[in-house]
Amino acid sequence: MLIVQKYGGTSVGDIERIQNVAERVVKTVNEGHQVVVVVSAMSGETNKLVGYAEAFTATPVKEEMDMLLSSGERVTASLLSIALNAMGYQATSMSGRRAGIMTDAVHTKARIESIDASSMINALHDGSVVIIAGFQGVNSDGRVTTLGRGGSDLSAVAIAGALHADLCEIYTDVEGIYTTDPRIEPKAKKMEKISYEEMLELASLGAKVLQNRSVELAKKLNVNLVTRSSFSDAEGTLITKEENIMEQALVSGIALDKKQSRISLEGVVDRPGIASDIFIALADKSVNIDMIIQTSGHDGTTSMDFTVSGDELHDAKNIIDTFVANNEVQKASYDEGICKVSIVGVGMKSHTGVAAKAFSTMAKENINILMISTSEIKVSMVIEEKYAELAVRALHDVYELDR
Amino acid sequence: MLIVQKYGGTSVGDIERIQNVAERVVKTVNEGHQVVVVVSAMSGETNKLVGYAEAFTATPVKEEMDMLLSSGERVTASLLSIALNAMGYQATSMSGRRAGIMTDAVHTKARIESIDASSMINALHDGSVVIIAGFQGVNSDGRVTTLGRGGSDLSAVAIAGALHADLCEIYTDVEGIYTTDPRIEPKAKKMEKISYEEMLELASLGAKVLQNRSVELAKKLNVNLVTRSSFSDAEGTLITKEENIMEQALVSGIALDKKQSRISLEGVVDRPGIASDIFIALADKSVNIDMIIQTSGHDGTTSMDFTVSGDELHDAKNIIDTFVANNEVQKASYDEGICKVSIVGVGMKSHTGVAAKAFSTMAKENINILMISTSEIKVSMVIEEKYAELAVRALHDVYELDR
Repeated sequence: MLIVQKYGGTSVGDIERIQNVAERVVKTVNEGHQVVVVVSAMSGETNKLVGYAEAFTATPVKEEMDMLLSSGERVTASLLSIALNAMGYQATSMSGRRAGIMTDAVHTKARIESIDASSMINALHDGSVVIIAGFQGVNSDGRVTTLGRGGSDLSAVAIAGALHADLCEIYTDVEGIYTTDPRIEPKAKKMEKISYEEMLELASLGAKVLQNRSVELAKKLNVNLVTRSSFSDAEGTLITKEENIMEQALVSGIALDKKQSRISLEGVVDRPGIASDIFIALADKSVNIDMIIQTSGHDGTTSMDFTVSGDELHDAKNIIDTFVANNEVQKASYDEGICKVSIVGVGMKSHTGVAAKAFSTMAKENINILMISTSEIKVSMVIEEKYAELAVRALHDVYELDR
Repeated sequence: MLIVQKYGGTSVGDIERIQNVAERVVKTVNEGHQVVVVVSAMSGETNKLVGYAEAFTATPVKEEMDMLLSSGERVTASLLSIALNAMGYQATSMSGRRAGIMTDAVHTKARIESIDASSMINALHDGSVVIIAGFQGVNSDGRVTTLGRGGSDLSAVAIAGALHADLCEIYTDVEGIYTTDPRIEPKAKKMEKISYEEMLELASLGAKVLQNRSVELAKKLNVNLVTRSSFSDAEGTLITKEENIMEQALVSGIALDKKQSRISLEGVVDRPGIASDIFIALADKSVNIDMIIQTSGHDGTTSMDFTVSGDELHDAKNIIDTFVANNEVQKASYDEGICKVSIVGVGMKSHTGVAAKAFSTMAKENINILMISTSEIKVSMVIEEKYAELAVRALHDVYELDR
């Protein structure tokens, strides 16, 4: 098999851990696989460099930030190659440039446009382990770019796609994706397999492991993703196409998003376009709206309820206040003490009654559901935050996720 | 003017010092000059990275060492560019690759083969300060190479040559080249100008400032070199062509090389090629021979005296012992307590009596001269190490170098 392995900052956090990664790579090679390794900067390095830059200015030039930050991954890549060569294994490190990773010119948040995999393929044919500095590429001017948060994961997925790798393993300090957060429900179980779609809906469960951007790219490129721990030998969780998952659970996992806020607008003036005016104004300030409920009254006005992430509430308030000041909204109220519980499973598509079971479980626990939204494979409920853990445990139990 | 400025590790050792360098660059720009800056890694960084690599093996792969170590200069270059941009000055950092520095493929000790200066010239035409990561280039395979010790100075000199710069300023923590080591003779004066040839002969005086490799390249490319301090506004020392120096001092400076050892071989067998056998064997072990005196006796054997640097004595002994064991040398003796005092000056070429004055000064101080060697512009004397400082001060005085 051709396997792409990606090791994050904590997995390569010091010399001993890099040695540990080298031993994992050797083990994979000895099992007869070809291996491409993508590495992040040693944990703490990127923050150190950002700190240096921000000592000069709060807004350092982005081109130079890319030049600066891309050095961290180069260091890890060459150190891992040194470790492998010292163990008698042929290995060669490559910068994003040498790996052929071409991006657009949006410095610090570049998108991968194409990959010229020829250098990687040649090195693999020579029998080398290929070690790529993650998080980076070059634009058409030949300048170094970086891919933003989670960039090394993106590098790994894109490279796995370009090389038609059999597997793309993302190593972190977590063993995989769990049916729910084990800190809330100790009976949570690690999932063996999950579809891309479910993973995307369970974003908060995977937050420490994988960003949605990487899952979306894996889905697009049809890359089999595995998340696993570099500190244990446990099998991880495979994220793959729905078709590859034989037995589909009705519900795969339960996600909890805390620190949500509900914004309730009463007496919204009834003119065409008012809703879009409000939501465009919010989007312009990068406020992400999650659930929306709109109710038309008999008096010609409308009520609107929607949720935003708690840390975006302040910006949202400022915008809503201008609509209140213009008399387009009579009254706005804000509720910070809420959370969102979501049950996710591809099995829902073909089975009825999954949502009903969720609602009745809430009722049994005397938890009031404030808002509901559903998609093909997800049911989300907004409840008071104080019931968050209770709701998760009750749902985990009723869908028998500990089995 | 077009000025290349090179700042070493201590000059860019922390954020405050990088800011200080940025202010110097700005001052130069405001005086109406075009500026290309070459930077080293922040002091301590390179050693830290070497330490990481050597944690895995005493002999890390050289290609990977270059990938590893070249990151330090990239960090400094981008930080300086961030600082300059934050001050409102257009600046762009370049890796050795982007600066067009092509080298041979001898990793960790590469030689610059050519410079494609077009990116630098374009950036200068755009009104940018150009900041180059020193110490590095790329080979014909596109892999990063480094230039070995003193590599950033070499980068600066080679770039100054390629750009036909008016001046190449090498900034360190020393104000320039002194007539002798001020720690030995407090009356030592900073030289205003000195020829390449004199500088090369005074290597030990410039040791903290400039390696001979850089002076030789400056001479070859006809680059006007200035060594000065990044911590003061004092004028430095200009190292230039002999023709550019109007008033040539009889003696420019006095160099002292301590920690020398004398090896005396008695009864060297009289066969053709024996001397070359001995010296080739020493050269094979990288033992550098300095002065050599050979005397043929009436008994068909030869005596040979030569000096080596003290830290190479151990290797030298091992080799000489094999010749003793083979009965090709009857007796070898080693004298570790010696030093070499050299007086250097282009004026010697046209004036006689300079050497005689040195010898009589030694006699007046009752210092026994053990060996003598002379070149067109240098007289070197080997004496007992205990007289080193006395000899330097007496010579500094007799040639009136404090005037």
